[in-house]
Amino acid sequence: MNSSEFRRRGKEMVDYVANYMEGIESRQVYPDVEPGYLRPLIPATAPQEPDTFEDIINDIEKIIMPGAASPACTELETVMMDWLGKMLQLPEAFLAGNQGKGGGVIQGSASEATLVALLAARTKVTRRLQAASPELTPAAIMEKLVAYASDQAHSSVERAGLIGGVKLKAIPSDGNYAMCASALQEAVQKDKAAGLIPFFVVATLGTTSCCSFDNLLEVGPLCNKEDMWLHIDAAYAGSAFICPEFRPLLHGVEFADSFNFNPHKWLLVNFDCSAMWVKNRTDLTGAFKMDPVYLKHSHQDSGKLLPSPSGLHWQLPLGRRFRSLKMWFVFRMYGVKGLQAYIRKHVQLSHEFESLVSQDPRFEICAQVVLGLVCFRLKGSNKLNEALLQRINSAKKIHLVPCHLRDKFVLRFAICSRTVESSHVQLAWEHIRELAAAVLSAERE
Amino acid sequence: MNSSEFRRRGKEMVDYVANYMEGIESRQVYPDVEPGYLRPLIPATAPQEPDTFEDIINDIEKIIMPGAASPACTELETVMMDWLGKMLQLPEAFLAGNQGKGGGVIQGSASEATLVALLAARTKVTRRLQAASPELTPAAIMEKLVAYASDQAHSSVERAGLIGGVKLKAIPSDGNYAMCASALQEAVQKDKAAGLIPFFVVATLGTTSCCSFDNLLEVGPLCNKEDMWLHIDAAYAGSAFICPEFRPLLHGVEFADSFNFNPHKWLLVNFDCSAMWVKNRTDLTGAFKMDPVYLKHSHQDSGKLLPSPSGLHWQLPLGRRFRSLKMWFVFRMYGVKGLQAYIRKHVQLSHEFESLVSQDPRFEICAQVVLGLVCFRLKGSNKLNEALLQRINSAKKIHLVPCHLRDKFVLRFAICSRTVESSHVQLAWEHIRELAAAVLSAERE
Repeated sequence: MNSSEFRRRGKEMVDYVANYMEGIESRQVYPDVEPGYLRPLIPATAPQEPDTFEDIINDIEKIIMPGAASPACTELETVMMDWLGKMLQLPEAFLAGNQGKGGGVIQGSASEATLVALLAARTKVTRRLQAASPELTPAAIMEKLVAYASDQAHSSVERAGLIGGVKLKAIPSDGNYAMCASALQEAVQKDKAAGLIPFFVVATLGTTSCCSFDNLLEVGPLCNKEDMWLHIDAAYAGSAFICPEFRPLLHGVEFADSFNFNPHKWLLVNFDCSAMWVKNRTDLTGAFKMDPVYLKHSHQDSGKLLPSPSGLHWQLPLGRRFRSLKMWFVFRMYGVKGLQAYIRKHVQLSHEFESLVSQDPRFEICAQVVLGLVCFRLKGSNKLNEALLQRINSAKKIHLVPCHLRDKFVLRFAICSRTVESSHVQLAWEHIRELAAAVLSAERE
Repeated sequence: MNSSEFRRRGKEMVDYVANYMEGIESRQVYPDVEPGYLRPLIPATAPQEPDTFEDIINDIEKIIMPGAASPACTELETVMMDWLGKMLQLPEAFLAGNQGKGGGVIQGSASEATLVALLAARTKVTRRLQAASPELTPAAIMEKLVAYASDQAHSSVERAGLIGGVKLKAIPSDGNYAMCASALQEAVQKDKAAGLIPFFVVATLGTTSCCSFDNLLEVGPLCNKEDMWLHIDAAYAGSAFICPEFRPLLHGVEFADSFNFNPHKWLLVNFDCSAMWVKNRTDLTGAFKMDPVYLKHSHQDSGKLLPSPSGLHWQLPLGRRFRSLKMWFVFRMYGVKGLQAYIRKHVQLSHEFESLVSQDPRFEICAQVVLGLVCFRLKGSNKLNEALLQRINSAKKIHLVPCHLRDKFVLRFAICSRTVESSHVQLAWEHIRELAAAVLSAERE
């Protein structure tokens, strides 16, 4: 949507809200619809081509408003998570459909999704062990639980371990900054020999530092064999999997128990919107379910259960915002093809930057460029690169966030703006070259 | 703001956003301001009288935009939480000010705030016990930890215990549905005698079922004496404490370690916005802090620390929305007096409904009406009242959510809409009376 259409549509929305408020007394306080009303009203998959804004707005009045906040909020979320899951070609087991055991839920952030997965896994293993040995207390079990993630995993994984009260061990990544099965296997064997209980593994697809990918096809079967819950954190990279050419990066997801990525990062959905799927939603509801009278409703104990139960028990907070509306609008306004084109453009621009860096012998590329992130540095000391970063960020024309790869201080060039063009990449590179020249000349003096 | 002003201002905002996007290339990518820039630019307290919308919008360009998302997002939040804390007359110890140890943070929900408090308390007691007895493992300590809340506390408290992996015990409430010190003391003594470690108490001000208030002035000193973290959950009732006549309900907050309520419930701030204060913010940062390179910034290790550190370590998710803008707009557009008038009107309307119920001998009031909630029922069986509720909610003119008080099934009439008037209360009561007559006559047949 360009700027002039945004002005027009935005103002129409303001009037829509004002009209709603003015006419509110003529609306019913409670919807007439039955649970499950929504799914039959909308297509089973996202459109390939964009819908018009008129079509979408008309559907708001026709499909959403009769279901008010409840059950429309829950139901649209379930269906949108199915749409998105299908866009990613997630295995059927992760979809809610009409009768599936799996399904998706919107969380606030990948950190929350990791924590929710860890807590669900903790509950599951505790119940399994207690069923086998009723004399075990939860505390006695928790003391022995061990979770694993690559040494490249996001800091929120460590935090989830801290909050969940379980040990979290970092698995040394390989030469491509990826976790492979041999290193994980070694840690698991050692811990089991020491009487500990391995129960949870976070595999990262697209690490924060350098967008590396853990080896799912190796790690997945190991997790299944050892009865460890496998959670996949693809916070950033996940959006790319809607393109068939990037989908192989997700191979092995079939071994996972839960999968998460952030459409708010790279799929044009405003913050926050973190998409999480599980194969067995009872694993989540089992970990969080509470049923006070004031949350009971007349349908939950009936045969007419929602295709997916209310989101209440899938997450940490009780309150819910209507975040699936953002997904619905974005998916329809772009269409799958529009979203794919957006991802492809970013990846192309990062390769353009990579190529510019590669042609300058003073610089080196520090990790394989797979998606929209280029890790690079001046050949030379960390001090030199810290000085370059300092100049770049002080000039305030562009902004870079660094990382450490092993003992190297590395600069990260991330393609992430909705409006980025090749001209921006070219300008940024010229700017970096000028500052690099200044830093190198200062060093020689 | 009435409907026609909303149309005008809303459309101005749409243009503001479009102009911003059109002119974005002329803006700097990183702000020029230094941490701490914001507080001196805005008043230390919320205005008593409303500001004009022009004044607020002008301040956006003048105060917020130069600070972009960071540090403006963190700094406005800290200052808004101080404004709100002062509106509630919270003890100085809970405010950040320029050099305070305490301060406030916005969470997504009261459930999250309770969980965050419990986790902070768990970390604190674990460190204290380990300092005294280094041979103790965290798991050995966790196994013995006990938290307490009234049997009237919200279900999210039980969930926090479940997630935090600690025992949670329900303290029997007294005849007013309040937790008092004697019952808590009894449980604590018994648990200590059994070798357990009492460490955390949630006191509720304004319970969900009937808006009862735990006895803070008794419970608070007991918590301090027994070295238990006291968290106050005032999710609904907290908004009322901005009125001097309701502030006595908060007496005893000075004994608490953390305090929380939801401005999104009753203070006109859109969902979500849950306000949480702590006396020692290092208790929170200590429980959650992680410091990866990609989150480091040039100010955090300098002497120019933010008056309040970044919200990152105060909460479960890492990402943050700019929710304090909602508070800033609402507090300024209403002024403290406008917000007080809003609360008072709701309380007055609930007393109006109470009085209508009291005049009808077929009905009884089931709990003291203190704020905007009236618990009532037909004198008679639970079955009778369930039938009445069924008729009310099937008619869909009004919507009531029930509760159980001891063995009684009770109807809850809640004043909570921004636009509610006496006429709505009168209509609702007429409607309830008619349906009650029908239910009673059906029963006699």
